[in-house]
Amino acid sequence: MNRPVSKAQTKNDLGETVLFKGAALKLDCGTALEDIEIAFRTYGQLNAEKTNAILICHALTMDQHAASENPLSGKPGWWIDLIGAGKIIDTDKYFVICSNVIGGCAGSTGPQSLKPDGSGPYGTDFPVLTIGDMVRAQTLLIDHFGIDSLFCVLGGSMGGMQALEWAATHPERVFSAVPIAASTRHSSQNIAFHEVGRQAIIADPHFLGGRYYETDERPRKGLGVARMAAHITYLSETTLQQKFGRNLQDREAVSYGFDADFQIESYLRHQGMTFVERFDANSYLYITRAMDYFDLAADHGGNLAAAFEGTKTRFCVMSFTSDWLFPTSESVQTVRALNAAGANVSFVEIESDKGHDAFLLDEPEMHATLDGFLKSAAQARGLTASGSAKEAKDD
Amino acid sequence: MNRPVSKAQTKNDLGETVLFKGAALKLDCGTALEDIEIAFRTYGQLNAEKTNAILICHALTMDQHAASENPLSGKPGWWIDLIGAGKIIDTDKYFVICSNVIGGCAGSTGPQSLKPDGSGPYGTDFPVLTIGDMVRAQTLLIDHFGIDSLFCVLGGSMGGMQALEWAATHPERVFSAVPIAASTRHSSQNIAFHEVGRQAIIADPHFLGGRYYETDERPRKGLGVARMAAHITYLSETTLQQKFGRNLQDREAVSYGFDADFQIESYLRHQGMTFVERFDANSYLYITRAMDYFDLAADHGGNLAAAFEGTKTRFCVMSFTSDWLFPTSESVQTVRALNAAGANVSFVEIESDKGHDAFLLDEPEMHATLDGFLKSAAQARGLTASGSAKEAKDD
Repeated sequence: MNRPVSKAQTKNDLGETVLFKGAALKLDCGTALEDIEIAFRTYGQLNAEKTNAILICHALTMDQHAASENPLSGKPGWWIDLIGAGKIIDTDKYFVICSNVIGGCAGSTGPQSLKPDGSGPYGTDFPVLTIGDMVRAQTLLIDHFGIDSLFCVLGGSMGGMQALEWAATHPERVFSAVPIAASTRHSSQNIAFHEVGRQAIIADPHFLGGRYYETDERPRKGLGVARMAAHITYLSETTLQQKFGRNLQDREAVSYGFDADFQIESYLRHQGMTFVERFDANSYLYITRAMDYFDLAADHGGNLAAAFEGTKTRFCVMSFTSDWLFPTSESVQTVRALNAAGANVSFVEIESDKGHDAFLLDEPEMHATLDGFLKSAAQARGLTASGSAKEAKDD
Repeated sequence: MNRPVSKAQTKNDLGETVLFKGAALKLDCGTALEDIEIAFRTYGQLNAEKTNAILICHALTMDQHAASENPLSGKPGWWIDLIGAGKIIDTDKYFVICSNVIGGCAGSTGPQSLKPDGSGPYGTDFPVLTIGDMVRAQTLLIDHFGIDSLFCVLGGSMGGMQALEWAATHPERVFSAVPIAASTRHSSQNIAFHEVGRQAIIADPHFLGGRYYETDERPRKGLGVARMAAHITYLSETTLQQKFGRNLQDREAVSYGFDADFQIESYLRHQGMTFVERFDANSYLYITRAMDYFDLAADHGGNLAAAFEGTKTRFCVMSFTSDWLFPTSESVQTVRALNAAGANVSFVEIESDKGHDAFLLDEPEMHATLDGFLKSAAQARGLTASGSAKEAKDD
């Protein structure tokens, strides 16, 4: 980035955004993305030494509203249980940043954004991104805050992929990393489910090759089907059986038809319908593709341990017993590589019947593990309860 | 059925069919289906005593061509490894019958059939069926052959559901039953995956509420997506990882696009595309619905054991360790109920990494188990190597 870059931080209904006007973000695909805009939320105060920042990385369909109401849906922040004053991610102590990934649809530059040349929204002219590109965009935001080293990078699912990517590519900027229900590479089965979703979207006649922004229509049905398929993978078989089983929806007997006779059908249809209100189909294509492409070992000559060679980052890896999308075996591979690289790593497999979505839910063991890890890391970093880096020395 | 019924058995390119003209098959939904036609194949000879018949029940997307080339696809019979002269299901010994389920699209009465009133094909005017209805239609065929008691009813997946339904509703007509990779009720997760497929079909603009037969179009994309989603559930994660992993398809590097970069994507797309050539979208809706509705316990006051009370049928239940669609836990429930009912039952969980589809593949332990079970049952039935029931007594 040798051209002059102006930065404009603005507040709007969706939180805050910073526009890096003139910046050209080099992407893994070989092209660059111009005039990057990043939408974010912060919670708490950055300390004078800028050592108390936690970057929260969100999952596929989440956004920057981790600890505050989503202004569009009116729903509370998706990690409100974890983040706040006196909570495990204590905003009296830490400065918490959460930004919408590039390629997303909650304010950061993505397929919905206007091209710099004035020829309308990108649509599928948007370049295909990687998790590495998402992280590279996040470094712009972290630089913007003048933060050299993040106290922690933390996230579940795709957020965990970003945490691992941060640790692998910017080890000196990551004091600690917490990848939850994640993996260093997307499995064949996961690529398969993503491909089903993409084909459902592309098959929708309103998709129009991604140029639907110029019409009044949206590929709602296709995106809805994509969400329905994905949603099954986020839950465990046990959860589905316990929560819905074969219970009927508002009826005493089956209808001998194709209505949503079963609660599980009604639930999935509802998931599909509400999702299309809050998510963009093109973003769904781009973000799933970035996840599919993620393969840290391949980026390091096939040797996963090489990705973390000599790292000083402290890792806390967590998985859930009933998560079949990012099963424990994936986390075990990550931990093995970290051990081989001589990293400081703790690993907890959490007994849960809630499936992949457990990372978003009230999981006491996950919360306790995170609490202990952050407190210990904060001590090692010399952070006090008030988030000051110096107090400990002054005492 | 008090009206005069004429039976016309004809041979055509698709095998044989028998038309029960004038017959009205009472369905669980309360209506009746008129002029039932059943397409079937037979292999081997029915002995004089009519005691050596094996009914093979097919799975969701299969057909009557179990042991002979499918005339449409040119592919060999789907259980050709098992059925034939000198094979485990020995056609020198047994008379093997396999019929297309009603609701199907391989010659039996289904949504593609013409309504008796001359107003064109049924489409979604076809009544919603159950597994019980499918079995009731099969009894017409078995009666047609003059068979009082089947030596064995045998099938995998939905075929296994039919075998269980036969044993529950016609215990006196089933000497032995072999449900493989099946269940006595469709689970919440399985209903969920079926619902995704149905919604993908219904979302296709060429579906036209099921009235697409009158157009030149078919809901190909929707049916393709349904097949892709379902196909993932037929394979194990291990199979996918071993067979495809993250291997690229005909390229050295990812394309940074939405082409089928990965072999798994290419494979799934191929599965979707070839499926729509051989299967009807309406049939897919009806047959998946029949599976969803299957719940033997519910049909017996919530007591699964009651479904098999006093049964004299010999059962051989099989499951596969890596089958996550019809996991071993489902077969264990079946076996528990059979034991509670005092049934003669043997149960084998087969170590396999091939997932649900293992029942269609070369699984030596499954073959050996089936071989032993059939030989022992044949002995108990007094069947000799030539399929005669009397020879044993004459010796």
